[in-house]
Amino acid sequence: MKALIYRGPGKMALEEHPKPELLAPTDAIVRVTKTTICGTDLHILKGDVPSCRPGRILGHEGVGVVEHVGTGVTTFVTGDRVLISCISACGRCNYCRKGMPSHCATGGWILGNTIDGTQAEFVRVPYADTSLYAMPQGADEEAMVLLSDILPTGFECGVLNGRVAPGSTVAIVGAGPIGLAALLTCQLYSPSAVIMIDLDDNRLERAKSLGATSVVNSTHGKTADAVLKIVGLRGVDTAIEAVGIPATFALCQEIVAAGGVIANIGVHGHKVDLHLERLWSHNVTITTRLVDTVTIPMLLKTVQSKRIDAGQLITHRFKLDQILEAYETFGKASSTKALKVIIEA
Amino acid sequence: MKALIYRGPGKMALEEHPKPELLAPTDAIVRVTKTTICGTDLHILKGDVPSCRPGRILGHEGVGVVEHVGTGVTTFVTGDRVLISCISACGRCNYCRKGMPSHCATGGWILGNTIDGTQAEFVRVPYADTSLYAMPQGADEEAMVLLSDILPTGFECGVLNGRVAPGSTVAIVGAGPIGLAALLTCQLYSPSAVIMIDLDDNRLERAKSLGATSVVNSTHGKTADAVLKIVGLRGVDTAIEAVGIPATFALCQEIVAAGGVIANIGVHGHKVDLHLERLWSHNVTITTRLVDTVTIPMLLKTVQSKRIDAGQLITHRFKLDQILEAYETFGKASSTKALKVIIEA
Amino acid sequence: MKALIYRGPGKMALEEHPKPELLAPTDAIVRVTKTTICGTDLHILKGDVPSCRPGRILGHEGVGVVEHVGTGVTTFVTGDRVLISCISACGRCNYCRKGMPSHCATGGWILGNTIDGTQAEFVRVPYADTSLYAMPQGADEEAMVLLSDILPTGFECGVLNGRVAPGSTVAIVGAGPIGLAALLTCQLYSPSAVIMIDLDDNRLERAKSLGATSVVNSTHGKTADAVLKIVGLRGVDTAIEAVGIPATFALCQEIVAAGGVIANIGVHGHKVDLHLERLWSHNVTITTRLVDTVTIPMLLKTVQSKRIDAGQLITHRFKLDQILEAYETFGKASSTKALKVIIEA
Amino acid sequence: MKALIYRGPGKMALEEHPKPELLAPTDAIVRVTKTTICGTDLHILKGDVPSCRPGRILGHEGVGVVEHVGTGVTTFVTGDRVLISCISACGRCNYCRKGMPSHCATGGWILGNTIDGTQAEFVRVPYADTSLYAMPQGADEEAMVLLSDILPTGFECGVLNGRVAPGSTVAIVGAGPIGLAALLTCQLYSPSAVIMIDLDDNRLERAKSLGATSVVNSTHGKTADAVLKIVGLRGVDTAIEAVGIPATFALCQEIVAAGGVIANIGVHGHKVDLHLERLWSHNVTITTRLVDTVTIPMLLKTVQSKRIDAGQLITHRFKLDQILEAYETFGKASSTKALKVIIEA
Repeated sequence: MKALIYRGPGKMALEEHPKPELLAPTDAIVRVTKTTICGTDLHILKGDVPSCRPGRILGHEGVGVVEHVGTGVTTFVTGDRVLISCISACGRCNYCRKGMPSHCATGGWILGNTIDGTQAEFVRVPYADTSLYAMPQGADEEAMVLLSDILPTGFECGVLNGRVAPGSTVAIVGAGPIGLAALLTCQLYSPSAVIMIDLDDNRLERAKSLGATSVVNSTHGKTADAVLKIVGLRGVDTAIEAVGIPATFALCQEIVAAGGVIANIGVHGHKVDLHLERLWSHNVTITTRLVDTVTIPMLLKTVQSKRIDAGQLITHRFKLDQILEAYETFGKASSTKALKVIIEA
Repeated sequence: MKALIYRGPGKMALEEHPKPELLAPTDAIVRVTKTTICGTDLHILKGDVPSCRPGRILGHEGVGVVEHVGTGVTTFVTGDRVLISCISACGRCNYCRKGMPSHCATGGWILGNTIDGTQAEFVRVPYADTSLYAMPQGADEEAMVLLSDILPTGFECGVLNGRVAPGSTVAIVGAGPIGLAALLTCQLYSPSAVIMIDLDDNRLERAKSLGATSVVNSTHGKTADAVLKIVGLRGVDTAIEAVGIPATFALCQEIVAAGGVIANIGVHGHKVDLHLERLWSHNVTITTRLVDTVTIPMLLKTVQSKRIDAGQLITHRFKLDQILEAYETFGKASSTKALKVIIEA
Repeated sequence: MKALIYRGPGKMALEEHPKPELLAPTDAIVRVTKTTICGTDLHILKGDVPSCRPGRILGHEGVGVVEHVGTGVTTFVTGDRVLISCISACGRCNYCRKGMPSHCATGGWILGNTIDGTQAEFVRVPYADTSLYAMPQGADEEAMVLLSDILPTGFECGVLNGRVAPGSTVAIVGAGPIGLAALLTCQLYSPSAVIMIDLDDNRLERAKSLGATSVVNSTHGKTADAVLKIVGLRGVDTAIEAVGIPATFALCQEIVAAGGVIANIGVHGHKVDLHLERLWSHNVTITTRLVDTVTIPMLLKTVQSKRIDAGQLITHRFKLDQILEAYETFGKASSTKALKVIIEA
Repeated sequence: MKALIYRGPGKMALEEHPKPELLAPTDAIVRVTKTTICGTDLHILKGDVPSCRPGRILGHEGVGVVEHVGTGVTTFVTGDRVLISCISACGRCNYCRKGMPSHCATGGWILGNTIDGTQAEFVRVPYADTSLYAMPQGADEEAMVLLSDILPTGFECGVLNGRVAPGSTVAIVGAGPIGLAALLTCQLYSPSAVIMIDLDDNRLERAKSLGATSVVNSTHGKTADAVLKIVGLRGVDTAIEAVGIPATFALCQEIVAAGGVIANIGVHGHKVDLHLERLWSHNVTITTRLVDTVTIPMLLKTVQSKRIDAGQLITHRFKLDQILEAYETFGKASSTKALKVIIEA
């Protein structure tokens, strides 16, 4: 089969590769019909993710059709159309039972990381019963691809951890795909204001069309002032960090209201300053989270019932043969205006 | 009347001072029968609290008897025995209505800070209806003094924010009065392990007698290793920071489990490092809080029903005339082994 | 001033009445600019509310302008435009502090019940600081009238108690004003399906235009079957009872899913059958609630930010002089299609 | 092997029966070392549980040693000492993922009901990975038996659903084994008062020794008055129904405070009256629940750390050969004073 293989920092190749086989009774083999590229894939290519070794098939998102299943799989049969969670959940360890499969003892984020992933014609999915989701009759396959990772990530790490509530005020720092996923999903809770902050006017325009009530371009500084001017000096109830650098985390500390939440989504490479000399008495909550994808069933229903129009995040479409071009397009998002790119097998 | 007056950094004096008078219809004048000294009073004396100006009567804890009340006070009458919250709550601003009077628009922590406090024979209590609590028949006055500030602080900022639960594991960094208050009150939720960490063996001994299941002296380093050896490599469910310096906050980050909480109580003078490069994916929650004292009614019931023996935190007793000596004793806690000192008017 | 006065079962009159005066320092006198009629007012007229004695000015909803305030009122001054909560909250009793002013020791639902109400040119509002809400600049007065009672009632008793969540399924039994208020406000949480059930096709049509995803006319029975056909045999996550008779409460028990909630809003005159012989093992929750109006601030923001279009519930407008005609219209809702009627002073 | 077999209403026999075999890759065969008898087993014997057919091996509680496991089982191996949950959880259906395995699509309460149970030398446990729990080193086997059903039932259905909290007041109606399990586990949350109500003075004595702060013998009526005399006219915060008849559910309605919870544990055979004509405005919550046993890990830690002394519920011990005598003893609890009887294989 064809598969995109990581060949070490800066290198990848679309190659012929043996089809995956069942390794455990709880496995399923899925024929991938659609997949996509994640910001994390770019991190791997930069060499920033040491757990991912050369030779690995990349990709942890996608939808497909069950090809065959192990003897321990009871939920799915050959031919079922399924959505693949980016998190493999054994469903039986302490963390899985607590609803936190991101830290599953033997699963977690392993697809396209420590085991072969979805940017291929076929993928082996461990713990299929608890890592695959049946696609509803008539579901839009492209929208479903976004349920593998980006929508649950924006929703769980940003919106739920951020305790967005009817009438509350939200600032989202970073209008990339993940920030926009938080923007889309936070509207499920009807906040009164959602302020989007980014350096790129194109993305801010997009944010407006996706429901942001205000946007702030942070290129010229005084960003905190601009935000406080919009929501009042008290600050925002929820600040969602969707970039992953010290400056954006600092901004969140400047704009969060007493009693508010900073919900971190960004993947950070460096420590940050936490201004406890000011915040110790501000009754704030700061949260971090690797997505658990436990909200896939909930989000599926909101997508099916058109409470969210997930398709709005899709900007480009490619065939698997063109996946290198897809990476090129996705990697140069500022010029190509790419958000999520769909790759069809 | 006699009152302890702050006279600028390093200076205070027990002086004759005019009795307070009603300034607003919502005020009450309370004759103080017992008060105590807080670590924050020492901070003021060091000059670390600029909002507290020389000339101020110190003290924000205490119990007493209502002397007279303003025309707008409906809950209390002359002669009522009351407990004074360290937080004055107007009961009507947005923050008070949200259960967060620590940030009350016109109240909050003002007693012994921006208005005269309780280390005197009489005190004016603003918003008496929502800042005083009726003392139950037969209540132990000394135990009640600890409900003004220290028990709610340990409980709200440490235990509730830290989400202590039956069977969970807790580490409390700092075995001073506030850490011990967290230790006492966390047992209301029946954790399976409570590890107390401090530099002082005397305090650790005390912690053991108050219910700590293990103690760690952090003098010689490797503290995180010692904690993880006790609870397992996963770490603790709740780490309570009860000191307020970068090193102790750093320790909390090393010992908190994925999915756990760092609940900060400490008053910090400096920013700290937050290791998001490691914690971004650890699903942790970090909380800060100035006490709201909204749990005084709940804690009152647990003290009355002997679920907590608050009196164990009291080590010394003085008359108001001896308050300078009381400060001396409380300020040299490592040699005097003082925890809370009771000052009787 | 002019006022609508209850004169005993079946009787009321628009009469000249002395203007109210301040009775306590915490009172405010409000000049009523707009009020409305509630189903409860009709109950009073039927003689079903013995606490309301003849001679009482009716009405517990409205907006107006502060005329003057008692010496204990600190939040409002003469000339402030305000929204009047149907619940008077002292803000200081145990129930108020627990966020449950419906059971306030000296307040609760007293306006137009045990003290004179809002269907008059002026009204005395006790505990003004905690029972009035400032109207935002530019607020739509008519929409604000609905925040006095009907929107918080639908939201608190139906939606919040019913734990409506993104993607969940909701059935609302009764498409009168209160059921429609639940319908409007439940959409703040983005359920995937909201099924409206009533005997009246006009109301069901209205429900559709207000966001119901399905409607069921229960005239011909088999209502439970019809609902289960829509949502699946498992049943609905939330069943909201907005009628108040045994038959509608019975229906809720037939359609609620295992793990679901029956949230009662209806005012019941008789006991009902609870089928514990079936439900004991169904993990259901049943809630009752007299509105606390603690969500007025939250709902105000959602109305201001256009997340809810409250005005859609208003069908008729009258002058205070025409209030008897307004009652006539509101009382014959099935023929007049009245939902909420606005009465302008 | 020996097994206790249900032979139709009123009949059972200890017989020789073939050893169970693995039927699915997710099964385990467990050699039972200790089991017990549940009130539900008596219900089956009366013929009240039609799903349980003659020929069935009874019993849904127990501990043992893993004999062998199916190919899909990854958590346990031969020789592991395990605790058997009374609820078989597939871990993959919607209900299991929501933490509600009591309603598992293919599991739930099936042991000793629709499949053979634990009152035998060996038992087949379906979905072993998510239905068995590893016994900690040094655990007391007898105490562990109580974690199969009775402690989680009292805790989940009574204490958690009842929202018992520090300082709150609790009444438990019924001092049988399940009511006493609620009594033991509610103390994990430090309520200020726990009132036990029963007809049997022996059981009430036992309740006192297990931590009840008051007891009321309901033989002579006026029970509600007696309870309200203890806690005040407002009523109790939590009323736990642990009997299952209309009279005891009625009592709960009389004693629950406004804002309180009635948590039903009792297995009801008949509908009950719900007095909505009074309760509609009392802001009460009523819950029902079939135990999910999701708190077994939490309870295990509280038993291991001696926060609960579960062994206090054990009154008698038998060998498997004597199981008919054990049933006799357990069935005549009022004369034998039996609570839980341990049966050793």
